[in-house]
Amino acid sequence: MGDKDKAKEVREKITFNVSKENNFSEWYSEILQKAEVTDIRYGVKGFVVIRPWGARTIEKMYKIYESALQRTGHQPAMFPTVIPASNFKKESSHVEGFTPEVFWLEKGKDDADEEDRLALRPTSETAFYQMYSLWIRSWRDLPLKIYQRANVFRYETKATRPLIRAREFYWIEAHDAFATLLEAEKQVQEDIKMTDAIMHNIFGVPFLPMKRPEWDKFPGAVYTVGSDSILPDGKIIQQPSTHLLGQHFSKAFDVKFVDEKEKEEFVYQTCYGPAISRILASVVAMHGDDKGLILPYAIAPTQVVIVPIYDAKNKKKVLEAAEKISLELFEERIDVEIDDSEKRPGEKYFFWEMKGVPFRVEIGERELKEGKVTVFIRDIGERVSKRIEGLAEEIEDLGAEYDVRLIKKADKYFKDVVVDCSSKEEIKNALDNKKIARFSFCSASHEGEKCAGYIEKELQARVMGTRADKEEKPSASDKCPFCGKKANVVIYAGKSY
Amino acid sequence: MGDKDKAKEVREKITFNVSKENNFSEWYSEILQKAEVTDIRYGVKGFVVIRPWGARTIEKMYKIYESALQRTGHQPAMFPTVIPASNFKKESSHVEGFTPEVFWLEKGKDDADEEDRLALRPTSETAFYQMYSLWIRSWRDLPLKIYQRANVFRYETKATRPLIRAREFYWIEAHDAFATLLEAEKQVQEDIKMTDAIMHNIFGVPFLPMKRPEWDKFPGAVYTVGSDSILPDGKIIQQPSTHLLGQHFSKAFDVKFVDEKEKEEFVYQTCYGPAISRILASVVAMHGDDKGLILPYAIAPTQVVIVPIYDAKNKKKVLEAAEKISLELFEERIDVEIDDSEKRPGEKYFFWEMKGVPFRVEIGERELKEGKVTVFIRDIGERVSKRIEGLAEEIEDLGAEYDVRLIKKADKYFKDVVVDCSSKEEIKNALDNKKIARFSFCSASHEGEKCAGYIEKELQARVMGTRADKEEKPSASDKCPFCGKKANVVIYAGKSY
Repeated sequence: MGDKDKAKEVREKITFNVSKENNFSEWYSEILQKAEVTDIRYGVKGFVVIRPWGARTIEKMYKIYESALQRTGHQPAMFPTVIPASNFKKESSHVEGFTPEVFWLEKGKDDADEEDRLALRPTSETAFYQMYSLWIRSWRDLPLKIYQRANVFRYETKATRPLIRAREFYWIEAHDAFATLLEAEKQVQEDIKMTDAIMHNIFGVPFLPMKRPEWDKFPGAVYTVGSDSILPDGKIIQQPSTHLLGQHFSKAFDVKFVDEKEKEEFVYQTCYGPAISRILASVVAMHGDDKGLILPYAIAPTQVVIVPIYDAKNKKKVLEAAEKISLELFEERIDVEIDDSEKRPGEKYFFWEMKGVPFRVEIGERELKEGKVTVFIRDIGERVSKRIEGLAEEIEDLGAEYDVRLIKKADKYFKDVVVDCSSKEEIKNALDNKKIARFSFCSASHEGEKCAGYIEKELQARVMGTRADKEEKPSASDKCPFCGKKANVVIYAGKSY
Repeated sequence: MGDKDKAKEVREKITFNVSKENNFSEWYSEILQKAEVTDIRYGVKGFVVIRPWGARTIEKMYKIYESALQRTGHQPAMFPTVIPASNFKKESSHVEGFTPEVFWLEKGKDDADEEDRLALRPTSETAFYQMYSLWIRSWRDLPLKIYQRANVFRYETKATRPLIRAREFYWIEAHDAFATLLEAEKQVQEDIKMTDAIMHNIFGVPFLPMKRPEWDKFPGAVYTVGSDSILPDGKIIQQPSTHLLGQHFSKAFDVKFVDEKEKEEFVYQTCYGPAISRILASVVAMHGDDKGLILPYAIAPTQVVIVPIYDAKNKKKVLEAAEKISLELFEERIDVEIDDSEKRPGEKYFFWEMKGVPFRVEIGERELKEGKVTVFIRDIGERVSKRIEGLAEEIEDLGAEYDVRLIKKADKYFKDVVVDCSSKEEIKNALDNKKIARFSFCSASHEGEKCAGYIEKELQARVMGTRADKEEKPSASDKCPFCGKKANVVIYAGKSY
C-alpha cells in the first residue's frame, strides 16, 4: 500500500468515504453527522439537534442577515410562538393554506375559552398584523419595518431531511407596511437584492428569483417571489421568498392609517422570509467536496486552525509561538483555534479539512526560525508560505479571495444548470440530467395549472415560475409543449423533494 | 400655571403620571407599555409581544451573556423545542415537578406512535442529556459545556406579568458535564460568579445567591442556588439559578464515560439558566424613575440621542453638524440616533428620557460656533458642556461612570433591604415594610418544611434559603421562631408574586 493509499485509509477512518457526485444524498447525510453540524438521532420526526459547529455557523449567518435588515430600516421584535386559531381565520386563503401544516396545543388559551386553540406559528403574519392594527395610526408611523429571528413549525407530511425540510426550522421573518402599493413593490425588489447581496455574494449560493405561478403563491399574497437554488442531485431547493401581500391582510386585520390629507386607508404590506437553517443546507451542498465541508470564510465558525508540529524537545517553544500567533489573529477578530490535542498532525489535517475550516496554519520549529508559517488553503488544497509578521492581514486577504473563488465556482456550476427546451422530451431529458428546464408555456395564471399538474405527475417536477428580475417572452409562434395552446410565458421547472 | 407646571403637563401627556414609589405595580405596567418595551395586547394569557425597544435591549443582554459563556468554554447549540413525553419520565422527580406546567401538542410524534406526546420544552435537561449519552464516550470528551439561547414554555397558573412571569420566556440554558463531582461543584460557583459579573456588575441588578431549602430545589437536582433580587414593592424575584445535578440525570439518561483508567463512570452535571427577559424586568424595576426608564449604558438600544435645535434659517447647517457628530460616534461603535422629527425640542426631551436613553446631545448653532455641544445625563438629570472634538471618547467615559453610578445606587438600596429578625413579629414587620427578613430557623432540610408552610400561609412569604456564597450560623441559643426548636440555619424570607 503506497503512502497515498495509506493516507486515504486514515482519512476515511476519521471522516467518511462517500462520493458527493455519485451519491449526493448519502454524502449530505454523512457530512452533516460526521462534521457535527446536526444530529438526526433526536428521535422525533422532522426535529434535529443543531450541534455547536452548525449553531456557530448559523449564528454568523444570522448576524450578517440581521445587520443588513437593520441597515435597510428594519427593527427586531420578538412575537409569541403561539397564535390563536381565530387569528388564522381572518385571512381566508391563509387559513386554508396553512391549517394542514399546523401543530396545535392541547390547551393554553384562557381557560374560559378552551375552544380557541393555540397554534405553533408556521409563519407569523397573523401574529404581527393584529398588533400592527394597534401600532399604526398615521402616515407618520409608516413605513413600519419589523423582523424577528424565530423558530417556526410546520407539520410536514413529506419525508423530512436535516436542514432541508424540517418540522421546526430557524428563520427570519420581516413584515413591512407601507402607505402606497409602489413602496411595497419596491420592497419586494429590495428583498430580492438582499437575497443576492447575502445568500449569493457572501454565502456563495446562486439562485434564480422566480415569480411563482398563480397556483403556487403564498396563501394570502398578491404574488410571491421565491429564490430557487439547486442541489447537486438536481433537486430544486426554495430559498428566501418575498411576498407582496397588498391589502389582503391589512383589510382582514384592519390595519389602517390616516394619510397626509386626513384620509383613512389600509396599508400595503410585504413579507420576506430567509430560512437560515435551510440556507445552511445549500451552503453545505454547494461548496463541499469528498473531503468534507467547505465553509465560506465569512461564516466559518473557526476560520483558522493552528496545528503546532513539535517533538518532546521543542514542544514548549512551538506551543508558545502558536499561542502568540493565535492571539494576534484573535485581536484582528479572526476566529482562530489551536489544535494541541494528542492526535498526530495528519489526523488533525483530515479532521479540520472535513470540518471545512478555510485555513490551517502549520507551525514547526524550522519555519519559526525563519519567521514563517505554512498556510494550507482548504478549497484548492494548496500550501503557501507566509511571514508571521502581518499574518492577520494576509489571512484576511486570503479569506476574501477564498470567498470570491467559492462564489465563482458556484456561479460556473449554476450557469450550466438551466437548459432551454422546446419539447416534452427535451424537458424530460434536462430534468433527468439534474438540470432546470426553461421553456415556453401556456400560462402562469390559473389556466396553466392543468399543464403544471401534468409536469408534477409525469415528470415528478415542479413549475418554478417566471423570472422576477427580468421579463422573458416566448416568441409569437411558441406553443405550450403540454396543451399545445399558444405560449404566453417562459417558465422554469425542476425536480423537487 | 408656571413654566414648571406646564412642563409637567406636557411630560405627562407624552409619558405617564404614576409614582414608582407609591404604586410600583401600575408604574411597571405603564412604563413597559409607554416606552414600547412590551405590548400586553396580544390576547393570549402569559404571552406578550416584545417590541423593538425591548428586543434591542434583550439582544445586547444576550450578546454579553453569550460571550461570557463562550469565554468560559461553553459552545452554542440549538435543540428542538419539542420533547417527547418519554424523555420526561426518565428522571422521576423531574417529571413530577414539571408535568403540571407542560404545554402538550395534539400531534407530532411519529404517526405510528400517537401515544408518545410531545411537550413544548419548559427546560431542556431531558432533550440535552439523551444526546449527551451519544456524544460522550471518554474522559477526552469532558468537560462538555453547551448552552442554547431559547424560548421556553410553562403553563403558569398564577397571575402572569410581562417579563416577570410569563408562559413563554427567553433565556439561556447551559448544560455542563464533568468527570468529577468536584469539577461540577466548581461550575456552580463559576455560575454564581458569572451572575455577579454580568447581572450585577454590568446590568446593575444586585442579588443574594441563595441555596434553596430541600423542598424548593429544582426537580432532579442535588441542590439549587437561586439568585434572588427584589422589586420596589418588596417582592422577591428569582433571577438566574444554577443546579448541581450530580449523577441523577446521567444515571437516568445513561450518560457514561470511560476514565483514564479505562473505568466506566456516570458524568456529573450542572445546569444554569439566566432568563434574559426576566432580568430585563429587574433592570426596568431597579433603575427606572417617575420620568420613565433608566437603562444602563452597556445595554441601552440607543445610547445617545442627538436633538438638533434649529430654526428655518439654520436648519441645514445644524442638521449637517448633527449628521457629522452621529457618524463619529457610530464609528466608535456607540449606538446613536438623531431625532429630526417635527416635534418640539421639549417634547423630544421628555420622550427620550422616558425611553431611558443615557445621553442626549443637544446641538444648537451658537454652541456649534464654539465647537461645543450640551450633553444631558439621564439618571442625574444634569447638563454638561463638552467639546465636539473627542466627543466619542468623552461619551464612553461618561457611559462607564453612568453604569457605575447605577450599580452603586442599586447596591445602596439593596444593602438596606435585608433586616435581621428574631421573632415572628419582627419578621412580619420586615416583610410588611417591603424588606427581606433574615433569621435563625429550624432547618433547611425536610424537617423545616412545616415552618416554611406556615410562613407561606400566614405571612404570604417564601423561604429563600441559606447563603450560597458564605456560611452563616445561628448562635447556639437561637430557636426557630415558628416551631421553637433549636435553630440550625440562618435563612432569608421575602414576599413573592
